[in-house]
This record gives sequence, structure tokens and C-alpha cells, in this order.
Amino acid sequence: MIPATLWTAIDTLLIGLLYFYTAFRVGNLRGKHRIVAPATSGHPEFDRAYRVQLNTLEQMGLFLPFLWVAAFYPIGWAWLAPSVGLVWLLGRIIYLRSYMADPDKRVLGAMIGGLTSAVMFIIAAVGVIEACLVPRAN
Amino acid sequence: MIPATLWTAIDTLLIGLLYFYTAFRVGNLRGKHRIVAPATSGHPEFDRAYRVQLNTLEQMGLFLPFLWVAAFYPIGWAWLAPSVGLVWLLGRIIYLRSYMADPDKRVLGAMIGGLTSAVMFIIAAVGVIEACLVPRAN
Amino acid sequence: MIPATLWTAIDTLLIGLLYFYTAFRVGNLRGKHRIVAPATSGHPEFDRAYRVQLNTLEQMGLFLPFLWVAAFYPIGWAWLAPSVGLVWLLGRIIYLRSYMADPDKRVLGAMIGGLTSAVMFIIAAVGVIEACLVPRAN
Repeated sequence: MIPATLWTAIDTLLIGLLYFYTAFRVGNLRGKHRIVAPATSGHPEFDRAYRVQLNTLEQMGLFLPFLWVAAFYPIGWAWLAPSVGLVWLLGRIIYLRSYMADPDKRVLGAMIGGLTSAVMFIIAAVGVIEACLVPRAN
Repeated sequence: MIPATLWTAIDTLLIGLLYFYTAFRVGNLRGKHRIVAPATSGHPEFDRAYRVQLNTLEQMGLFLPFLWVAAFYPIGWAWLAPSVGLVWLLGRIIYLRSYMADPDKRVLGAMIGGLTSAVMFIIAAVGVIEACLVPRAN
Repeated sequence: MIPATLWTAIDTLLIGLLYFYTAFRVGNLRGKHRIVAPATSGHPEFDRAYRVQLNTLEQMGLFLPFLWVAAFYPIGWAWLAPSVGLVWLLGRIIYLRSYMADPDKRVLGAMIGGLTSAVMFIIAAVGVIEACLVPRAN
């Protein structure tokens, strides 16, 4: 069986790949629509792609710290946190695809991301509280 | 006594909660003022909230890495880094509240955040330098 | 010899310093060109500096997670990941300097950053795959 921290590392690499894709797409669309730096808007398709990239970064800034706190202070079901990480990733892929099609359709993906972030906070908090109650050597 | 790394994890969860609040507020104000995605401006209250969220993310991107390096390579007073983390958090709450009231009043909160980031850098650097001088098994 | 994780911590502090500089510069130029918050544009020099700061944050959000996964699951050549980290840092310094002079000259620095991020992903992925094949106690 692969330890939970290793699954957390795999989640992190996959999340990084998704984010790389959102950033790569912004670069491509900047060329396609001739948006001259430092402008970050100028064509609807580019604007959506840039907003998707930045929102992905904003949500990673919330999710990755929770995910790694959960890895450092795991609950009994140590596999739960990295599994929720995959659901978050799925939510963000849905967000990306639906936002590019029509920003108004972003709600489902955004909700999956938000709910899994809240769940990850709870998992991490439970792990930290358990570690407070049963002091260990770290 | 609760180990310093555990306090660092608690800091991280609290910082995440604050950031979640700044992002949640942006979502709410987007609805209230009918700012249609992908726009990120359109009403002064929304603009302030969005700027607070992004600035919080910008400062977390500086502070969390320093905080965790300080946790991995602690100085003798291992409780100092997570304590400074709580002061940073307080500074960011002050920033949030004063910025929403009037952006010109953001200076105090921003200064507390900046100074505690500088202090955290020094704490982390001292810990790393000590670890270089006394090589350990990591 | 200084262990690879310690080099990773040193990389992280240096990357933080670079990012701090990009953010500090934005603050200074905000004062110089009297860009009133919450505006994030209004003068070409400020616009470039703000874009450099945000792009640095965007790229850190990709690079630091890969760098630390590589530190937690090192390959045999454990020194390789933190060395690539220094090349990334160099690329970002080139990016900063050339972007401030002329945004069109940002390509070299951006490419060094992008390529080293891809290399870091591969290093981290190899380390994680090796750890999957030879299960360890973490």
C-alpha cells in the first residue's frame, strides 16, 4: 500500500500540472489575440483564460496548505485527505472547462472546489486537534 | 507542551481561514453588485474586497514558505516563529478591516504584515544557518 | 556536506527574498506615481512592476510545490533539485530586469523559468515514482 503522504505528493504534482496548463493557455491566447504585455485583458477568450489561471492559483493557495497540514497530522483514515484532493482536482477541471465555455456555467466546478476545501480544512483541523491531545515527538 | 511544528500547523489553518473569508466576501460582493465574470472590478466595495483577497494571497505566498522553513529548521526558541505567525495574522485582520473602510487606512495592517514577514525571514535564516553549521541527518 | 533538504530551504528563502523585492518595488512605484489603492494600474512603470510581482507569485505557486515534493521524495542525485532551483531563481531575476526595461524582452527569463519548472516536475515525479516502487515508512 502506498502511504498517504505519497498520495499527497502525487496530488500536488497533478494539481501543479493542471495549474501549468491554465498558465500555458494564457500564454498561448496572449499570442493568438495579440494582447501586448503588461496588459491582462483585451479579448473575451483571453480574459476568461486569465481569470481561470488566477482563480486556480487563488484556490491552490487555500487548498495546498490544508492538504499538507492534513498530511503532516493525519487522521486515522489517512487516505481520506489525498482522496478529497483528487475530488478537488476534478472540480477544478470542471471549473476550467465550463468557465472557458461560458463564465456563468462555472458554479458547479467552483462549488466542488469550495466544498472540498472546507472538507480538507475539517480533516486537517481534526488531525491537528488529535495531535494536540496526544502529544508526539514532532 | 504543544510542539512548535504543531503551532505552525495551527497558524496555517487560521491563515487559511482568514484567506477563505477574504475570498468568500469577494464572491458575495460579486453577486450583490452584479459584477459579471470574468470582470474583477466594477464597484468600489467589490474592488476593495478583491484587492484585499489578492493582497492576502500575495502576502501568504511570502509568509507561509518562511514560516514552514522556520518550522523545519527551528531556532532554539522554537515557539517564536509560530508566535510571530499570530502577529502576522492579527496584522492581516487589521489590514482587511481598515482597507474595507478606507484603502488609505491600510498602512498599519500592511506594516505589521511586512515587518513580521521580515522577522520571519530572519528567524528562518538563523535556523537554516545553524543547521548548516551543525549538520544533521536531514 | 549540506543535506539536500537544507539547500531546498535556502532556495526557498532566496526565492522569497526575490519575491519580496518585486512586491516592495510595487509599493514604492505606487507612491512615486500616485496610484491610489485599490487601483493596480495607471502608469507604465507601475504596471510593469505589478505584472512582474504577480507573475513571480504565479510561477512560485507552480515551482515551490514541485521543489518541496522533490525534497520530500529525493532522487539519487538529491543535490539536483535545489541546484535547478537556483537556475530558476536566476531566470526570474533575468525576467524581472528585462521586463522592467521592456516587456517584449521578457522571453528569455520566462523560458528559463518555464523550462526549469518542467525539469523540477520531472525530478519530483521520478522521486515519487521511485518511492511508490520501493515503499518506505512515510
